[in-house]
Amino acid sequence: MKEVKIALVQFKPNHLNIEKNLERSFDLIEQNQGADIYLFPELYLSGYLFTSIEEVKKVALRSDNIVFDTIKKYTKDKKIAIIGGYAEDESGRFFNSAFFIAEGEFLLNYRKVHLFNEEKLFFSPSFNGYKVTKYRDINFGIMICFDWIFPEAARTLTLKGANIILHPSNLVLPYCQDAMITRALENRVFIATCNRVGTEKVGKKKLAFTGKSQIVDPSGKRLIQLPSSKETVKIVKIDASLSENKNITNLNNLLQDRRPDQYIM
Amino acid sequence: MKEVKIALVQFKPNHLNIEKNLERSFDLIEQNQGADIYLFPELYLSGYLFTSIEEVKKVALRSDNIVFDTIKKYTKDKKIAIIGGYAEDESGRFFNSAFFIAEGEFLLNYRKVHLFNEEKLFFSPSFNGYKVTKYRDINFGIMICFDWIFPEAARTLTLKGANIILHPSNLVLPYCQDAMITRALENRVFIATCNRVGTEKVGKKKLAFTGKSQIVDPSGKRLIQLPSSKETVKIVKIDASLSENKNITNLNNLLQDRRPDQYIM
Repeated sequence: MKEVKIALVQFKPNHLNIEKNLERSFDLIEQNQGADIYLFPELYLSGYLFTSIEEVKKVALRSDNIVFDTIKKYTKDKKIAIIGGYAEDESGRFFNSAFFIAEGEFLLNYRKVHLFNEEKLFFSPSFNGYKVTKYRDINFGIMICFDWIFPEAARTLTLKGANIILHPSNLVLPYCQDAMITRALENRVFIATCNRVGTEKVGKKKLAFTGKSQIVDPSGKRLIQLPSSKETVKIVKIDASLSENKNITNLNNLLQDRRPDQYIM
Repeated sequence: MKEVKIALVQFKPNHLNIEKNLERSFDLIEQNQGADIYLFPELYLSGYLFTSIEEVKKVALRSDNIVFDTIKKYTKDKKIAIIGGYAEDESGRFFNSAFFIAEGEFLLNYRKVHLFNEEKLFFSPSFNGYKVTKYRDINFGIMICFDWIFPEAARTLTLKGANIILHPSNLVLPYCQDAMITRALENRVFIATCNRVGTEKVGKKKLAFTGKSQIVDPSGKRLIQLPSSKETVKIVKIDASLSENKNITNLNNLLQDRRPDQYIM
């Protein structure tokens, strides 16, 4: 048994207002105590819809930003982990990133590998790949939103040992939530997708996000699904050790049965 | 436009009786004329449930078997293609294979790469990999049944240029039909899954097959789904050229956006 309680914080960020988003995220945690891990959406600290590089610059955080000190201190005091998305500034290059901060430690920074649509105008794609970090004796991997459509993303995290894939998202297409059942099944891992809700409008541009945050278990069972448009927090207890059994029949182990010599990449 | 009419022949084979299965398959084609391609299930010439190697030997076909001459002549006369599964004998090694015979030509033989459960007791896994063949100016790939759960199978066929993946099956688990929506979406290909119906019982062993044969288009839309337990034939006209557009947004091409340098295999 490797029990862990994951809170899906289906958040509606305040557009381009990091201070307010950080404060509200702490409020939501206070109001929903008892989880070990609080998972927020993609770019929850900034909002999603950028229309100029100046807007990105305004909210992009360097690794020494005081926001991370604040989150480190908060997670240490509360003995919790927070995972969520932010715009990252590395020497003037910007990444669509997600942090994993647990009990005062910055355990993992993931930069989105597959950028969606106009994100390509503002962000650089990652060259740092998919990584796994251990917390509470469980291996966690992160992928962000559109990474979902590339089976290689979840597969790579699984081959690196992930038990649970944390998936901060800002989904606008309708496909992902059902597709994650396939991803969980084919890898026999847990996938926690935390999507945002609400709409963002800047000038003529408008995006509506689809909510329905969810956790799927290694057998492809959806353990929970939140509503499509309401800011909601739910805590789910899971046994991460279930993901260590890759057998789908007595004679079929889904990782050992792979035939890389027969694949092309 | 690359129009083609595909018939899903959701068949119930007669156990270990090739002659009767071949005859009935021709009867079903006669009764359902008008398709270009008739897709049958996995092992439709033999049935599925083997309990001894002697049973496999009894129905395994070598490449010079007269059955193939009969099918070649039939498809030439009718100006059609037939795709379906059979037990293959190559010098005493047995494969769970599928043929693609079109208008008198044996265009493709695919041997199952990922064997399911007790198939491992009777069949050798393929070392010949995934291949694509062209017919009516359309690229067809074949995967068989349990191949579905390995995303690398459909991905490899897609990277080799498949427009349509033909998927003869004998499904006993309930997951595949929904998962094929994800496979079609992530590769932007058509996937035609032809499953069998009925049950097979030999001694204490019993298997029930799940029907629900279907065709999914490159946008993840299920164009048709047959019933779960009734032998049924349906013809669907599709435009294979739709699978040539791999764009999911103006800025996202699902093949060009892949990042093999960031994946492990």
